[in-house]
Amino acid sequence: MSERPGRRLSRRALLTTAAATGAVAATGAAAGGVLLADGDATPSATSVPASTEPFHGKHQPGIAAPQQRHALFAAFDLETTDPVKRTRRSAEQLATVFGTLMEQWTLVTANLMAGREPGLRPAGSPQAPADSGVADGLAPARLTLTFGLGPELFERIGRADRRPRALEPLPAFENDRLEDAWCGGDLLVQICADDAQVLSRAFRTLRSRTPGSARLRWTQQGFLGAFGDATPRNLFGHKDGTANPRPGDTGFDAAVWADPAAGPAWFTDGTYLVFRKIRMDLPKWDTSPAHVQDQVIGRRRDNGAPLSGGHEFTTPDLTKTGPDGEPLIPADSHLALVRDIPMLRRSYNYDYGIQGTAEPTETGHRHAGHDHGPGMPAHSGSGHDRYDSGVLFCAYLRDPEQFVRAQRRLATDRLNAFIRHTGSAVFAIPPGARPDRPLAAGLLSAR
Amino acid sequence: MSERPGRRLSRRALLTTAAATGAVAATGAAAGGVLLADGDATPSATSVPASTEPFHGKHQPGIAAPQQRHALFAAFDLETTDPVKRTRRSAEQLATVFGTLMEQWTLVTANLMAGREPGLRPAGSPQAPADSGVADGLAPARLTLTFGLGPELFERIGRADRRPRALEPLPAFENDRLEDAWCGGDLLVQICADDAQVLSRAFRTLRSRTPGSARLRWTQQGFLGAFGDATPRNLFGHKDGTANPRPGDTGFDAAVWADPAAGPAWFTDGTYLVFRKIRMDLPKWDTSPAHVQDQVIGRRRDNGAPLSGGHEFTTPDLTKTGPDGEPLIPADSHLALVRDIPMLRRSYNYDYGIQGTAEPTETGHRHAGHDHGPGMPAHSGSGHDRYDSGVLFCAYLRDPEQFVRAQRRLATDRLNAFIRHTGSAVFAIPPGARPDRPLAAGLLSAR
Repeated sequence: MSERPGRRLSRRALLTTAAATGAVAATGAAAGGVLLADGDATPSATSVPASTEPFHGKHQPGIAAPQQRHALFAAFDLETTDPVKRTRRSAEQLATVFGTLMEQWTLVTANLMAGREPGLRPAGSPQAPADSGVADGLAPARLTLTFGLGPELFERIGRADRRPRALEPLPAFENDRLEDAWCGGDLLVQICADDAQVLSRAFRTLRSRTPGSARLRWTQQGFLGAFGDATPRNLFGHKDGTANPRPGDTGFDAAVWADPAAGPAWFTDGTYLVFRKIRMDLPKWDTSPAHVQDQVIGRRRDNGAPLSGGHEFTTPDLTKTGPDGEPLIPADSHLALVRDIPMLRRSYNYDYGIQGTAEPTETGHRHAGHDHGPGMPAHSGSGHDRYDSGVLFCAYLRDPEQFVRAQRRLATDRLNAFIRHTGSAVFAIPPGARPDRPLAAGLLSAR
Repeated sequence: MSERPGRRLSRRALLTTAAATGAVAATGAAAGGVLLADGDATPSATSVPASTEPFHGKHQPGIAAPQQRHALFAAFDLETTDPVKRTRRSAEQLATVFGTLMEQWTLVTANLMAGREPGLRPAGSPQAPADSGVADGLAPARLTLTFGLGPELFERIGRADRRPRALEPLPAFENDRLEDAWCGGDLLVQICADDAQVLSRAFRTLRSRTPGSARLRWTQQGFLGAFGDATPRNLFGHKDGTANPRPGDTGFDAAVWADPAAGPAWFTDGTYLVFRKIRMDLPKWDTSPAHVQDQVIGRRRDNGAPLSGGHEFTTPDLTKTGPDGEPLIPADSHLALVRDIPMLRRSYNYDYGIQGTAEPTETGHRHAGHDHGPGMPAHSGSGHDRYDSGVLFCAYLRDPEQFVRAQRRLATDRLNAFIRHTGSAVFAIPPGARPDRPLAAGLLSAR
């Protein structure tokens, strides 16, 4: 397949395609705002605030960069109905809608990540302020926005032949307890920042550009404590990410970036993201003895060392046995099952608390204004708890098959007694944007 | 009424009352953990981590202190059924349950705020670790825990005669759109910290002490950007809290602390908290012109100055008119209606995103996996949006009547077109703990 370089981003193209989709993107320039097209967005060096991550590059931001303290994951579906004509959009129309949205998101993202005003007004609102003002006075706080494309998008926009080869819907797994509402999506945005309000404003800015183009499907928000250079801890209290490849290490590139030989050409320097919402049964975990907890994981909670000894980064010895002749690291511990499958985990903890009365429960019935609490004798271990907290598991990998292989092995994981997977999605993460080319431009370029 | 000094907190009392309630609070001391009774909890100066707020004092923490960046509000109801005997508890039994829980929470809180292990094992779990380990390696991040008592608690524990005089359920207001699930509660905990994971761990620690004693009723979580010394901005982009009294200012004490002459004696140095969950229609706000937004608030968004001129802290001039003869600050703007009613606002922004498919909507029907998005022509302005974000309004005040008066005036507030109150609660906030006395001890002391 031959591909021309990606479409150039221009004001003309932006306005033309916007008008064509009915999204009526009025530009800030028309009403006193600031419109910075991507190609002329370079501010003077002195105006770039500290704590910014670079947007342009070979790869998208928010992957190899150290994790920020807050994250929001949002999935959107393309709007299949033309909001003006009320007719179903054709694949080619959807491709135009998609292309325009990616151009607008690219523009807005480049500006926000650099600490500038977003540069486009909300769709359909020429009189509205270009920005919400919510983050006025706040530093960019290492804001990154990372965009992904779901498996069904490619057919929908008539580009099935350009789907990254390894992108398939994930298979069903033995212990899945998925809720439809937290699965899938045509488009993903991962937003990360060290400041929750900077993150909230960035998401709102992106979302305000979607009316007529895309619908919000789900959101999930997570956090990490200020662990600095130490491996962050999850809500089981264990260090999570010890075995991650480090950027610059041998093997990092091979573990994380898509195989360029696998194609398609436009996807070179892309990667894949597997997202799983994993609910933790914290009351059950909290009432288990410490040695039971450690054997589930295969590591010591306090210092992260494998149960075979040493320190956090000591190579686990799966053959070493204790006085009872049993392996110190149980064969069905989490560590033993997945330690040799490389992936870049970039997970976040989440703690939604109780969300109203209408939250679906495992048993299908509802409670009016309370729950039974953890450890109540009548309900202990039943998972009967409306409280929703756990981990937003994120893995960037060369091929989602790495995750599939790991997850199949985990069918016998001791950890299954304490977790359940309730959300799932997989996305192709296109290569990074260049100043002259919006994200995913290669997907739409002329054949 | 004569009151003896509050009950002394002792290990003996703790164990005796715990056993009496069936809550079976095993102490950490019995299994290698650390039990610090409140009176002997003073560590050496060098072991106190930086970034701690004092727990003991005349007033509770988390009120006059500068706001932290994250907050969780959780309401609990006392468990009215004995979990062992399966019988309904008497008022005197509930008083014992309440007293024990406050002793345990006091102990745990003093330790967590000082950066120590919590010091008690989860209820009913003698083999479990005393702490979750979730915040190992994290600084206390100015953690504060603030406890409140709901209006119905006092009758329930047979202490109606000791109810703080000004504590009454809030009346219904004209624009209320309250959801039962987000209202009321016997007990409140406000947890604040600069680190979301420190906060999450503190809440989990408190909650693990509740089985058999109390049930979680609702939780709400909020955030603020790192505004430093500047007034924080809400999700309308406006500065929120400009008119707050400052600790040390004339009028602060009279605005915030309960009137000691009003009684009862045990409540001296207490205060009241009015909590309202206020949902914001951000798509509607975002598509309104800037001057409309400013006139709703009565201030300029950019610098917070009143529309009558000056800077953020200039006294508003409600009589000043513009070229059209109209007041520069509209009489039905938010500022004009409430500016002369003092209260200490300590509000947080919240942004829950979309929470599953089962979230109740205004019209009573549900969507499978998407919403219609902001500004969609067919739904614009209908409030038809599952996205839940806004402000967790918190006001500490001498008397909840201050809030009632303000809220009644706000019946004509222009802001009502953009907000709705969906949660509501009021609590008496007891005075601060002393090293020899758990929180709210005076409520239970001998008559």
